[in-house]
Amino acid sequence: MSSNWKLTLAYDGTDYCGWQVQPGLPTIQEELSGALERITGERVLPQGSGRTDAGVHALGQVASFALKAPIPAENLQRALNRTLPAAIRVLQAERAAEDFHARHSARSKWYEYRIFRGEICPPFSARYVYALHGPLRLDAMRQAAASFLGEHDFRSFMASDPDRTARARGSEVEDCVRTIFASEWYENGDMLTYRVHGSGFLHHMVRNLVGTMIAVGRGQFQAGEIPHLLALRDRRATGATAPARGLYLHSVMY
Amino acid sequence: MSSNWKLTLAYDGTDYCGWQVQPGLPTIQEELSGALERITGERVLPQGSGRTDAGVHALGQVASFALKAPIPAENLQRALNRTLPAAIRVLQAERAAEDFHARHSARSKWYEYRIFRGEICPPFSARYVYALHGPLRLDAMRQAAASFLGEHDFRSFMASDPDRTARARGSEVEDCVRTIFASEWYENGDMLTYRVHGSGFLHHMVRNLVGTMIAVGRGQFQAGEIPHLLALRDRRATGATAPARGLYLHSVMY
Repeated sequence: MSSNWKLTLAYDGTDYCGWQVQPGLPTIQEELSGALERITGERVLPQGSGRTDAGVHALGQVASFALKAPIPAENLQRALNRTLPAAIRVLQAERAAEDFHARHSARSKWYEYRIFRGEICPPFSARYVYALHGPLRLDAMRQAAASFLGEHDFRSFMASDPDRTARARGSEVEDCVRTIFASEWYENGDMLTYRVHGSGFLHHMVRNLVGTMIAVGRGQFQAGEIPHLLALRDRRATGATAPARGLYLHSVMY
Repeated sequence: MSSNWKLTLAYDGTDYCGWQVQPGLPTIQEELSGALERITGERVLPQGSGRTDAGVHALGQVASFALKAPIPAENLQRALNRTLPAAIRVLQAERAAEDFHARHSARSKWYEYRIFRGEICPPFSARYVYALHGPLRLDAMRQAAASFLGEHDFRSFMASDPDRTARARGSEVEDCVRTIFASEWYENGDMLTYRVHGSGFLHHMVRNLVGTMIAVGRGQFQAGEIPHLLALRDRRATGATAPARGLYLHSVMY
């Protein structure tokens, strides 16, 4: 009789090639799978709530898997934190309902994007923020952020390599409609943080939203153009992809 | 006519083999020298206030060198921060008196050692603190810290490989007498920080002081034994060397 598990994880994605196992490359999923095998002797592949790309961080990624070993949750958490590299921490380990699946059961997700606006970015923050100089019109960025709210086809903000995306998703044509429940910029000293809550996110979507809002902040686009950019359903119409190091998967809602 | 320069630097030492140039290895001095050459065309070897070991960080390392190029200080700083990796930042660039030398002119230094005491060390702090669990008697550690104050022979706290140390210093017998002006532990939430101000520090000295104070905190030594441990002038008598990742060269006084 095996039991189903739910883990909540934080990680520094800088030195990893993303969440998903790739032969010969360091990934979070592989580290977690290896640690579980060393602890329990069982070879399982934990399912994440979704992939995070190379260099993207997590404050609350969720993973699920089944284990035969009858190990108390607290012991599993402690053993994982002893076994995993310090760049990956298990914040919570709990038993989950039999039908719980980190990806299929997810109802929505929060992401956060951190921009450092100060003159000199401290070396101890450099891996964890996008250091961006020069003037930005925050009011225009806030207006742009608000125009993403609601249900839209976000194809204009999906990674521009459709072959790769289709292969990755295992489908030829992808439904790009997502609902955004919250989309807002917060300013706190030298930090400018974007927080977004949505039903789901396409590949590179948050980084493309941020890149386009930065372009709005610089006056390269007008905030009022966003509905038009969405309607074009064309990645070439929108701004650059913001760097991975500023992006955090904040939390997954079930 | 060349002019003498003083730079104040912060760096994340994690991915460097310390300050000093070593052929084929990444070092802070080499990065700085390379950046200066790319900017000015001049090949200079900046002199640091002292070496920092592999993995040790700096909040205010100081370096000096002479340049022929008549470049404004602000421009040199900006160009260096554009050229250097994000793990190394120039906090200040200023012209210095002709006889200023980062090491020879230094009068004293502050170091800081950061210990994380919480249950789970955030992955974003893991490179920058020593995560240490288990009970520690902070009162005893404070008493030990105070017993380092004043002038002592610190041979018991010098790196234990005398050959290597002698070679590194270019002398057969080293004067190990140093004066400590401040030596104190500060507790702030999950952080336990040791700050020490001294006329100079031997190789590994701060990490060895910290390792011995941790042993005192665990009851492996008594704080009252410190004067005796100093008098032994024997590295084998004292505690383990605390990990490099918790250590910061805080500032250099001139």
